[in-house]
Amino acid sequence: MDYRKLFFVDQGQRFRLKDQDPDSSPGLDSKAEGEAALAAAGEQLTHLQRLLYAEKKHGLLIVLQGMDAAGKDGSIRRAFTAFHPLGVIATSFKVPTLEEMAHDFLWRVHPHAPARGSIAIFNRSHYEDFLVNRAHRRLDDQAADLRLEQIRNFEALLAQNGVVILKFFLHISKEEQLARFKKRLRDPESNWKIEESDYTERLFWADYMSAYEEALAATSLPSAPWYVVPADRKWFRDAALMQITVEALKALDMKFPEPTVDLADIERKYHTAVLEQDNKG
Amino acid sequence: MDYRKLFFVDQGQRFRLKDQDPDSSPGLDSKAEGEAALAAAGEQLTHLQRLLYAEKKHGLLIVLQGMDAAGKDGSIRRAFTAFHPLGVIATSFKVPTLEEMAHDFLWRVHPHAPARGSIAIFNRSHYEDFLVNRAHRRLDDQAADLRLEQIRNFEALLAQNGVVILKFFLHISKEEQLARFKKRLRDPESNWKIEESDYTERLFWADYMSAYEEALAATSLPSAPWYVVPADRKWFRDAALMQITVEALKALDMKFPEPTVDLADIERKYHTAVLEQDNKG
Repeated sequence: MDYRKLFFVDQGQRFRLKDQDPDSSPGLDSKAEGEAALAAAGEQLTHLQRLLYAEKKHGLLIVLQGMDAAGKDGSIRRAFTAFHPLGVIATSFKVPTLEEMAHDFLWRVHPHAPARGSIAIFNRSHYEDFLVNRAHRRLDDQAADLRLEQIRNFEALLAQNGVVILKFFLHISKEEQLARFKKRLRDPESNWKIEESDYTERLFWADYMSAYEEALAATSLPSAPWYVVPADRKWFRDAALMQITVEALKALDMKFPEPTVDLADIERKYHTAVLEQDNKG
Repeated sequence: MDYRKLFFVDQGQRFRLKDQDPDSSPGLDSKAEGEAALAAAGEQLTHLQRLLYAEKKHGLLIVLQGMDAAGKDGSIRRAFTAFHPLGVIATSFKVPTLEEMAHDFLWRVHPHAPARGSIAIFNRSHYEDFLVNRAHRRLDDQAADLRLEQIRNFEALLAQNGVVILKFFLHISKEEQLARFKKRLRDPESNWKIEESDYTERLFWADYMSAYEEALAATSLPSAPWYVVPADRKWFRDAALMQITVEALKALDMKFPEPTVDLADIERKYHTAVLEQDNKG
């Protein structure tokens, strides 16, 4: 199944999050099938990252957004440990510092853009500020349009410089979020970070969905696509994420560079039996 | 087996790399045993990283040094993908840029020191410049001593600020390096990066070993220990690295923080059946 088509947010169409079922798992009938797809995609990603690094024509930027407990952290662990740690930097964007707030909102994001040959994963991103403020009605229409235009321009700049951008909205239901909160409550490895605001933010659920619909529709372009991935089932979420990433990288048709030395010559000079003897000394 | 004792470079003793066999695998009799140790240590590291992140008292700095093909890249992939990508940044230090060379040699390194709660892995490090220049006799004794003192002071600063420092010299034999070079020559995913200097540097092998002996002996302190890990067998190298890291983190006796909210209260307010009904609306 081509998830790049299925989950792509098409700017041309009226787009509603509630038209998509967070609990669906198109193309994969069971967790076992999902795990198999995940393992296969993992091997491909390992290989594709080597190509990306070797060719150094493209960078890869993966943006993960979603409501609290949608699985941004979890999917980074599950889906993207296929990447070699040396070629990937995952960044969590927290509440801005005073210094960061004294600049435009992209100032603190830009340094984390991926170099050609490497991969950046954003856990929350340059969209977060828009989403929170829009959901809480602290951004009027004009300010919202301007912000989204600035985001389009920033992403265009990256894309024009060889960065492949993939943006994922991890789509969970309000019920699934509450179920995950309940589990978290009983987990001593996680419950230390619970805040009451995790719950009170749920009052703004519909406002967040509107803000997401607005942002996704306005910024989903072929060069910086948004994908809405059903995320109530973790195995489906991870398999879909990885498959979309694999397909996007495969489409680059990357090649390993040619050696810069004469390999036969190197072999003759340094790998003959005689020289191996010498080298033992 | 306590690899932290076995492989620790003790400043008090006369230390010679040739006293240690790169092909040895103390405590582990087979690859299968090594793999089992690796898997067990991986699970522990995942848990210990959660503690490190939650407690935020300590950072972890892992320094990997070794001759070309000693397995720095490979061990980062194998041994340390147990860490969640969001909490670890692996950095390769390449040839310094012009801007970097206009500063002291630690200027470009310091920004990569791990924050409390997070992990930094250095693939090559602030030792590289010393090692290359000392091996090629471009650093006289006085300059060498000064450089090593500066490194000790820098590492002391980090340690005094809660950073656990673990430094690994991946010890391979000259023969094993040549065998790995030969394999690389035939691997189209790797042979594009071969340079003749990979081979000509082998002429300075003994000089490199002397430079390593000097650096390790002068900078191996309880707060910033060096471990010489036999690395001709990859599975042993990775298992030993991970085991030492596990033991060092366990010794911190870390605890998850207490929740800042009243969990029973949260459960009553937000997880009762009635409210779940409400929330469905």
